[in-house]
Amino acid sequence: MALLPIKTVGVIGTGVIGSSWTALFLARGLKVIVTDPAPGADSKLRDYLLKHWSTIPNATVTQADYLNNFKFVKEIDPHLGNLDLIQENGPERLDFKRSLFAHLDSNTPEHVVIASSSSGLPSSEFITGCKKNPARILIGHPFNPPHLVPLVEVVPHQGTGDAYVTAALQFYRSLGKDPVLVKKETPGFIANRLQAAVCAEAYSLISRGVVSAEDLDKTMTSGLGLRWALTGPIMTNTLGGGGDFNHFMDHLGPALETWLDDMHRHEFDMNSQDTLKERVNEWISDVNLKEVEESRDKLLVGLIGSKSEGSS
Amino acid sequence: MALLPIKTVGVIGTGVIGSSWTALFLARGLKVIVTDPAPGADSKLRDYLLKHWSTIPNATVTQADYLNNFKFVKEIDPHLGNLDLIQENGPERLDFKRSLFAHLDSNTPEHVVIASSSSGLPSSEFITGCKKNPARILIGHPFNPPHLVPLVEVVPHQGTGDAYVTAALQFYRSLGKDPVLVKKETPGFIANRLQAAVCAEAYSLISRGVVSAEDLDKTMTSGLGLRWALTGPIMTNTLGGGGDFNHFMDHLGPALETWLDDMHRHEFDMNSQDTLKERVNEWISDVNLKEVEESRDKLLVGLIGSKSEGSS
Repeated sequence: MALLPIKTVGVIGTGVIGSSWTALFLARGLKVIVTDPAPGADSKLRDYLLKHWSTIPNATVTQADYLNNFKFVKEIDPHLGNLDLIQENGPERLDFKRSLFAHLDSNTPEHVVIASSSSGLPSSEFITGCKKNPARILIGHPFNPPHLVPLVEVVPHQGTGDAYVTAALQFYRSLGKDPVLVKKETPGFIANRLQAAVCAEAYSLISRGVVSAEDLDKTMTSGLGLRWALTGPIMTNTLGGGGDFNHFMDHLGPALETWLDDMHRHEFDMNSQDTLKERVNEWISDVNLKEVEESRDKLLVGLIGSKSEGSS
Repeated sequence: MALLPIKTVGVIGTGVIGSSWTALFLARGLKVIVTDPAPGADSKLRDYLLKHWSTIPNATVTQADYLNNFKFVKEIDPHLGNLDLIQENGPERLDFKRSLFAHLDSNTPEHVVIASSSSGLPSSEFITGCKKNPARILIGHPFNPPHLVPLVEVVPHQGTGDAYVTAALQFYRSLGKDPVLVKKETPGFIANRLQAAVCAEAYSLISRGVVSAEDLDKTMTSGLGLRWALTGPIMTNTLGGGGDFNHFMDHLGPALETWLDDMHRHEFDMNSQDTLKERVNEWISDVNLKEVEESRDKLLVGLIGSKSEGSS
């Protein structure tokens, strides 16, 4: 099956994620047909696009084209025949997604990939009403904000066709993104599971009074996180083993097991969060969150920029 | 108790960690008395210092002073009276550390902080033979390489005096490092526990065929890790909750619990690593590790530099 080049993308939903996808698609020279039922969504999207233009790395069009190549529509149905891919960003409600996908599937030409930004619902759960071609439906879950952070988790359901998976991976790569393929539907996909693993242990350590919330975060931002921004857990292990993952496991596996055993003994109880919240808020109440967020966004642009220079 | 300003540091052991500490101390204008029984350790240290001079951020001395302000000695005993702090980096063997610390404690003036770089052994286990002043002994566990990565985990034992803890924290801060206080001895301290949490889930996902080793790492380096280099897990949660940690927990806690439950059901068995090793090695065998390491080191210097600019 030969898939057509993607020139026009449909974006459904212009919340935080949908607006950011729209910005990215436009900056890469695509045409976008976009819809959202919320009052004022049209002008909010325009404001978003204007505000974020300067932060999008490697735009391939002028600002004028970026702002002109989208059409905000009240009804997407008349345009479904003209789209080469759909990126859906609706609410994370199963009933909503089920009826939306049934509708999209039956009204969109058969070959068009329909990707959902869903961070939680696997597509197998919401394709139940799709009669035409559910094989072109999959998850393309971005990391916020999509116009900046390269990661996209591509998660097919059991019936998604390989050609559509390949097409989605290629599409995201063509935008300069770094998609990963989640080969089996798994709760939380990959990123949220790794994040949950860290959070659960962090909550436990803070609740138990082993470390303050501020110092817990510092352990990440001044140590572990610096490394993980550059080499992932497996490569970090491998380099730690002198270039040999097996050596690392044989040598440090036993220590790892001791730590994991102790972590099990002190597992965080999600039903008793009071001490945790209290200790976190003692710290957070003294922090200027606006400054933290602005500084993070600025540094994030720089970090992503220097990484892509470093690898080219 | 008033502690003296720290001008001269004793470094015991010049493996990877001890050499890097020495480089940092020298670049910050300290005098260093350093010892290591290994044959050729003296010239190896000199080579290390020369090689790493250019990568040390914010040196306060000239290269000549950096290279002249240390003295490599065969025996440290005659110098113990002239040290203001000791940073120990010997082998991670309990019997070795026990006799070393008993010796250091009885031969070093009472007020001098003795910090061990131990990544695994808590100091309560090796102060058992210290009769003079075990209250000045603690862990100062750096993140490799100490001359670059800001994190130091400061871990007192139950009998460590508060003034010595404060002195150690101040000392590391004066070097431009970012120490965290681990208030209770815990296997793996903080960083290694967070790392173990991520690794265990990563090993499970790869072994189960949910994701390739390469894509697992990409999930970190192109997504999660970029965020964690800038905001830790708690701040990331808080910003994700619109500036409200409680809101995040109330809203996303249930999803987190679902993921954690599923992770428990698929826990990695540290006794069956064959599939994991096979899948990791399929990827790693195709990677030029030397290039990865060089690129990481270069990017790490840049990242740490731009973060310290960003915060000043």
